[in-house]
Amino acid sequence: MEVTEAILKRKSVRRFQEKPVSNETLKKLLNVARLAPSGGNRQPWKFIAVRNPKLIRNIKVFSEGLSGTPSLIIGMCTDDMKPNSIMDMAMASQNIMIQCVGLGLGSCAIASFNKESVKKLLDVPDDVSLPLLLSIGYPEGEIRDRPKKELSEVSYEEKYGGELTL
Amino acid sequence: MEVTEAILKRKSVRRFQEKPVSNETLKKLLNVARLAPSGGNRQPWKFIAVRNPKLIRNIKVFSEGLSGTPSLIIGMCTDDMKPNSIMDMAMASQNIMIQCVGLGLGSCAIASFNKESVKKLLDVPDDVSLPLLLSIGYPEGEIRDRPKKELSEVSYEEKYGGELTL
Repeated sequence: MEVTEAILKRKSVRRFQEKPVSNETLKKLLNVARLAPSGGNRQPWKFIAVRNPKLIRNIKVFSEGLSGTPSLIIGMCTDDMKPNSIMDMAMASQNIMIQCVGLGLGSCAIASFNKESVKKLLDVPDDVSLPLLLSIGYPEGEIRDRPKKELSEVSYEEKYGGELTL
Repeated sequence: MEVTEAILKRKSVRRFQEKPVSNETLKKLLNVARLAPSGGNRQPWKFIAVRNPKLIRNIKVFSEGLSGTPSLIIGMCTDDMKPNSIMDMAMASQNIMIQCVGLGLGSCAIASFNKESVKKLLDVPDDVSLPLLLSIGYPEGEIRDRPKKELSEVSYEEKYGGELTL
């Protein structure tokens, strides 16, 4: 799939088929995460891939933002909660979510979950943060389109408030 | 360009040709930013596109992380500095940086700049944050490859520390 098409086609997916995510596919997703940019090339991240259905069900119990039953959850860990680490991890997440589109997968970024409980389920040490989960699987049914602000509402030229003249 | 290729080819670019970024190209970059995911579809962002060479030179004065002279700087503003807003903005940034590759452009994410001074140059209101600048242009010369941690160093299965068996 062409890169622009993949970026434009990405939508948050909340209903999944039962079809599992293969080793090969998972490897591709973790690999693009690894290659995201990071401040000072620090790579302040760890990725925890969960495909065990029982563990996924347990994570769901503590994750109100998680809809549907994904075949894969990736826990996106960071060294700390500083803005720079959060940014780096989010860029790695977006690499995964765009790569998903190219592989026929759907994804959703979930920040709304009980951090303490999910960290415990995944054995994440106290000094490591887990700001985000990615739920991933093959989409089931139609993907709902959510309204986006117009380009002119969110873009300025030259300065804040400067009208876009494109 | 194929989506996986674009993601894998992205590297931080710090030397740029003088070639300007056209209106059409800029519009594509701002459009993919707009379509990134955000928590609760809140879209807590504004994008300030700067192509004026004099203004770019002035921003450079206050931006130690900014190497080379890009043809375009995009100021990535957020409603606040909460982790969720930072994540959303970073995902929009990664959309831009991947789209850049498909358009033959190079980019670099810059968090190291004097926030107060650059906000003043861009007329950003006090209650709006500017955590990141993206420097963008056509790459000049070879792009330096930076060492990345191996997949097995940053990826776990089932739990933190769990060996990846892919």
